[in-house]
Amino acid sequence: MNARAPRTAALKVGRRGSHDGRVRAVIDRVIPEIDCGRFAVKRVVGDRMIVEADVFADGHDQLACMLGFRHELDRDWNEIPMTALPNDRWRGEFPLERLGRYRYTVTAWVDHFVSWRADFKRRVDPADIASAALVGAKLIAEAANRAMQRDAQLLRDWGKQLISALDTDEIRRLALDEEMAEVAQRYPDRRYASVYEKELKIVVDRERARFSSWYELFPRSASPEPGRHGTLRDCEARLPYIAELGFDVVYLPPIHPIGQINRKGRNNALEAAATDVGSPWAIGSAEGGHKAIHPKLGTHDDFLRLVARARELGMEIALDIAFQSAPDHPYVTQHPTWFTWRPDGTVQYAENPPKKYQDIYPFNFESDDWTPLWDELKSVFDYWIAQGVIVFRVDNPHTKPFGFWEWAINEIKAAHPEVIFLAEAFTRPKIMHRLAKLGFTQSYTYFAWRNTKQELTAYFTELAHGPGREYFRPNIWPNTPDILTEYLQSGGRPAFVTRLLLAATLAANYGIYGPAFELSEHVPREPGSEEYLHSEKYEIRTWDLERPDSLRYLISRVNTIRRQNVALQNDSTLAFVSTDNDQLIAYLKATTDVTNVLLMVVNLDPYHGQSGWVDVDLDILGLQSDVPYEVHDLLTDARYRWQGRRNYVELTPGMGHIFVVRGPARPLRAAGSPV
Amino acid sequence: MNARAPRTAALKVGRRGSHDGRVRAVIDRVIPEIDCGRFAVKRVVGDRMIVEADVFADGHDQLACMLGFRHELDRDWNEIPMTALPNDRWRGEFPLERLGRYRYTVTAWVDHFVSWRADFKRRVDPADIASAALVGAKLIAEAANRAMQRDAQLLRDWGKQLISALDTDEIRRLALDEEMAEVAQRYPDRRYASVYEKELKIVVDRERARFSSWYELFPRSASPEPGRHGTLRDCEARLPYIAELGFDVVYLPPIHPIGQINRKGRNNALEAAATDVGSPWAIGSAEGGHKAIHPKLGTHDDFLRLVARARELGMEIALDIAFQSAPDHPYVTQHPTWFTWRPDGTVQYAENPPKKYQDIYPFNFESDDWTPLWDELKSVFDYWIAQGVIVFRVDNPHTKPFGFWEWAINEIKAAHPEVIFLAEAFTRPKIMHRLAKLGFTQSYTYFAWRNTKQELTAYFTELAHGPGREYFRPNIWPNTPDILTEYLQSGGRPAFVTRLLLAATLAANYGIYGPAFELSEHVPREPGSEEYLHSEKYEIRTWDLERPDSLRYLISRVNTIRRQNVALQNDSTLAFVSTDNDQLIAYLKATTDVTNVLLMVVNLDPYHGQSGWVDVDLDILGLQSDVPYEVHDLLTDARYRWQGRRNYVELTPGMGHIFVVRGPARPLRAAGSPV
Repeated sequence: MNARAPRTAALKVGRRGSHDGRVRAVIDRVIPEIDCGRFAVKRVVGDRMIVEADVFADGHDQLACMLGFRHELDRDWNEIPMTALPNDRWRGEFPLERLGRYRYTVTAWVDHFVSWRADFKRRVDPADIASAALVGAKLIAEAANRAMQRDAQLLRDWGKQLISALDTDEIRRLALDEEMAEVAQRYPDRRYASVYEKELKIVVDRERARFSSWYELFPRSASPEPGRHGTLRDCEARLPYIAELGFDVVYLPPIHPIGQINRKGRNNALEAAATDVGSPWAIGSAEGGHKAIHPKLGTHDDFLRLVARARELGMEIALDIAFQSAPDHPYVTQHPTWFTWRPDGTVQYAENPPKKYQDIYPFNFESDDWTPLWDELKSVFDYWIAQGVIVFRVDNPHTKPFGFWEWAINEIKAAHPEVIFLAEAFTRPKIMHRLAKLGFTQSYTYFAWRNTKQELTAYFTELAHGPGREYFRPNIWPNTPDILTEYLQSGGRPAFVTRLLLAATLAANYGIYGPAFELSEHVPREPGSEEYLHSEKYEIRTWDLERPDSLRYLISRVNTIRRQNVALQNDSTLAFVSTDNDQLIAYLKATTDVTNVLLMVVNLDPYHGQSGWVDVDLDILGLQSDVPYEVHDLLTDARYRWQGRRNYVELTPGMGHIFVVRGPARPLRAAGSPV
Repeated sequence: MNARAPRTAALKVGRRGSHDGRVRAVIDRVIPEIDCGRFAVKRVVGDRMIVEADVFADGHDQLACMLGFRHELDRDWNEIPMTALPNDRWRGEFPLERLGRYRYTVTAWVDHFVSWRADFKRRVDPADIASAALVGAKLIAEAANRAMQRDAQLLRDWGKQLISALDTDEIRRLALDEEMAEVAQRYPDRRYASVYEKELKIVVDRERARFSSWYELFPRSASPEPGRHGTLRDCEARLPYIAELGFDVVYLPPIHPIGQINRKGRNNALEAAATDVGSPWAIGSAEGGHKAIHPKLGTHDDFLRLVARARELGMEIALDIAFQSAPDHPYVTQHPTWFTWRPDGTVQYAENPPKKYQDIYPFNFESDDWTPLWDELKSVFDYWIAQGVIVFRVDNPHTKPFGFWEWAINEIKAAHPEVIFLAEAFTRPKIMHRLAKLGFTQSYTYFAWRNTKQELTAYFTELAHGPGREYFRPNIWPNTPDILTEYLQSGGRPAFVTRLLLAATLAANYGIYGPAFELSEHVPREPGSEEYLHSEKYEIRTWDLERPDSLRYLISRVNTIRRQNVALQNDSTLAFVSTDNDQLIAYLKATTDVTNVLLMVVNLDPYHGQSGWVDVDLDILGLQSDVPYEVHDLLTDARYRWQGRRNYVELTPGMGHIFVVRGPARPLRAAGSPV
């Protein structure tokens, strides 16, 4: 049903002047609704949007309740009827078929025809029935006046029959005619409908927003020849390797010219040697700023080739957007008002006393020239979008105003709804949530520092089932160029395996920083630090991808399993399963129709083998305690016959099972076999 | 601090045009806040209003955060600083000193002076300190420009000293001067302050809204002479008895002329005998309507005397407002459009098929003449307020539109903030909550049908600690003229005692329908019915108040205990205590400073004595497990020495303890001794 904006005068109570007292229905507690409708919920194309609301009115009359929705680019509203649940709750749903933003709201009214019919069924007294028939005939005549030609005639005839019927049984038969009731209900009296006071918003992203596998690498370390500065062409040559690993987003740290002034040396030394390459995040030099490519990486054409080649391999290039400037960034001289000048005539560099970041000037967002600053920063995204980039990892968004991000992301997504923004905000929880609410598509998490079963269970239960589930899409990383955790430093290769299995199966979006990850790079700059020794942030590294201890084949297998098992492609069904060993973590993920059910069991101990009993709730899987079922390990192709809730598991250090669970009665969806 | 409306341009993000990008603080999750600020929270005069909010900004700067509030009759806002709690939460509080409505909101800004000072403390490098001193001097000079004369000079001098100091230690000492910092902080730069987008509302009632004891009686049954129609003068004579029972609200069913047409007979008979008095809720006859007094009850002057006499005794008269008309109410002929006319020319009477209420016509709130109808109904309240009545029990508010109540209550309370409205809505939970939210001061509950320990625990935990705690004030009744529960019908006098003790101690507001209650009136009209045989709703009853089995002395004692123990005067501290016997319910109530602590233990079994162990959490009472403490039964004056968590209790059928708990170390507030 299509209707131009189904809005009746909204109920503004408390002040009679502004509303019609005949509006009687109340609409309340609509979900989902984030912060009173201030922010949009997130979904992906193909999802069904389920909406619930409390809807009720005074007295005993029956209500009708409609869920209205429209894509923001459409003018007309669609409407579907909502269904009454117990306790004055109503539910409706609609499909999200297009990228972009939708709006939805709820309309309800006291329906006198439906009320009349419901009351009529309960009447017993013949005098009552005769009197009620007259009332009904009047309501039917009114519906006829609202009806289309043919229906109008049908209704008029029905009303006349009802008035002229004499026999009580005949009146009852006529009054309760199902077919005619359906016709009448097509033309309700909506004059006094209540419309929910808010239009709530949905951002509909493409599927990759919900399910993606990221691989981060430093282009300048992509050269196969030791000592040579890697290039975008080297990256292009590396793409098949990354595709073989099974990733779909290839994320590059900033590719722009790097400042010369105050450049950092190896291992973050304050003084750089002449040959030092500096930090890619110290953006800008005489060679250009945020829209330029570092000359040593190659040309604009090289970049376009890289983007195109990635696409051929089913992957996308993601760029790192870091809004800050090296002291020699052209902005500093062209737009001095965008920086904070100290009374001594120098620019305020980034610092968090006593720490200093002398190679970086932050922007002054309290500048009187904030408007051109916002425009320029947004234009950086626009520029790279024009070069074919539609995935961005945003560096430290929490050090720039929330208002800027909300404006920029909304503007960009209005024109390019396919764009994905990943927020790199390792900060306080409420700030991370705010960034997700205001528009970031995906968010980094605390995963790297959640190691024990208790920590992982609490954190991922919160991510999957807490309020953030409507807007905060976790993208979890076992390592990054800034984060080499104590667990990885000390646990050896098994620690990397554990963290890979957890990352790839706990969240639908995950990523690794390679080749450091697949080569188990684990030596810190100094004890107690999470920085790498010889960090690629400050120097070029050469990696031996063919090392026999590389995790590349395991990673490839894990990513194949993710692609072949829909259960791993969203976060909402995660359910932890109890085990009797604190070093064994177990959890289920399933499709909502339970045709694809995966059970993960991971040994969190990188030093010792661990064994124990896994206790699976069979009911939620539709399995019976007295019938065996199969668990098929997709990592090793081993198949086990299990029965009942409790089954035994034994795992070597840092290893895990990714079981697909297959019941006997109803064959669960087939998953691919190992390569 | 007083300030004219501390509102800066509110942050409307997402659309740059409408906000200043330099506004950086975010204010979120303000509590209390009901339905996005749509409704007011309820408090009473003398309460302290505690407000919390999430407040944060981008980056590492320090914030300042203020709680603004004003009485609606004032133009100026007051402001007090909020204090930072962990996890970006802030809290502030202010006293509610006046009746009426308040508004509150939160303002926050990035405070550069405070940030500078916090950073300064962490600086170690002398060059850094020298540079930072200059930055500080600039901020101080800006503060001086905002400051009042004397402070301006102080600040200017300070800034100059800071600039001219040469020695690092001297600079540090000057920069961190506490006294001068305090002066500077009085003049913050609020140009880019964020103001929470909503002004939230508080309704501040008088204390009786939170703590009241109601006694309902039928005036026409107040005659001491059997057979004579009771009068308002008889009621007046009854007042000392009610005062002695310890009640403070005397609630009368409708006192208006009763319809002759379709009048109901005794026990709700469809045909009334000539002598039958009819239902007081069938309001209106040739003798007048909702503003008239039934001639058999007396005169207008009699009513004024009754109100005055009640006041002398520390009590108030509450009237019953039932918006419906007998067929011979003057409204029916004067305002035919306010009723629903059926096609057969008759008025639609109230019904819920197959049930009929032929003696009552409901108003048609969907009338085209709804505006004069609303005005007239509101004028009924206004009329009785002018006669000195400021407590109203509203009959079936859920069968009239929510919009009407919200408008009427808000209008009335704007002029008369002392008025109390009790909603008699025994209906679905969401509807009861809506009525409380939109303005009803107190609400009837499901208490009458909650009998087991599990039911009582779940329901009163929800009432005391659920979302309704901010707006839904329960007023609990063991019986009403419509509700004679199965428990009371079958349990005899002990059942009445149990329900009295529960009602009077579980909720700060409670009431009984007397003298039926104190005389344990318990015979139903027929088995399975909750109606009384010979219900006062349809006939005059004569009550023997001097009957030896009357509960009057127990009631009097219980009400005295309520008056003398502040712990029983609010609902918020209720905490259930475990016992090992399902027939023994136990719970604590305490003042927030824990100087008055009551422990109730009630035997729910009206047939058998019960005994068991009560397990009290000593920590929350500040008691130690190895030191004895005293529990003093305020009903019997018995004192017991208890020690440790678990102590033994034994109770006769339907009896209970109201213990005041007195610790040894810190004497808990003394409570009165039994009469």
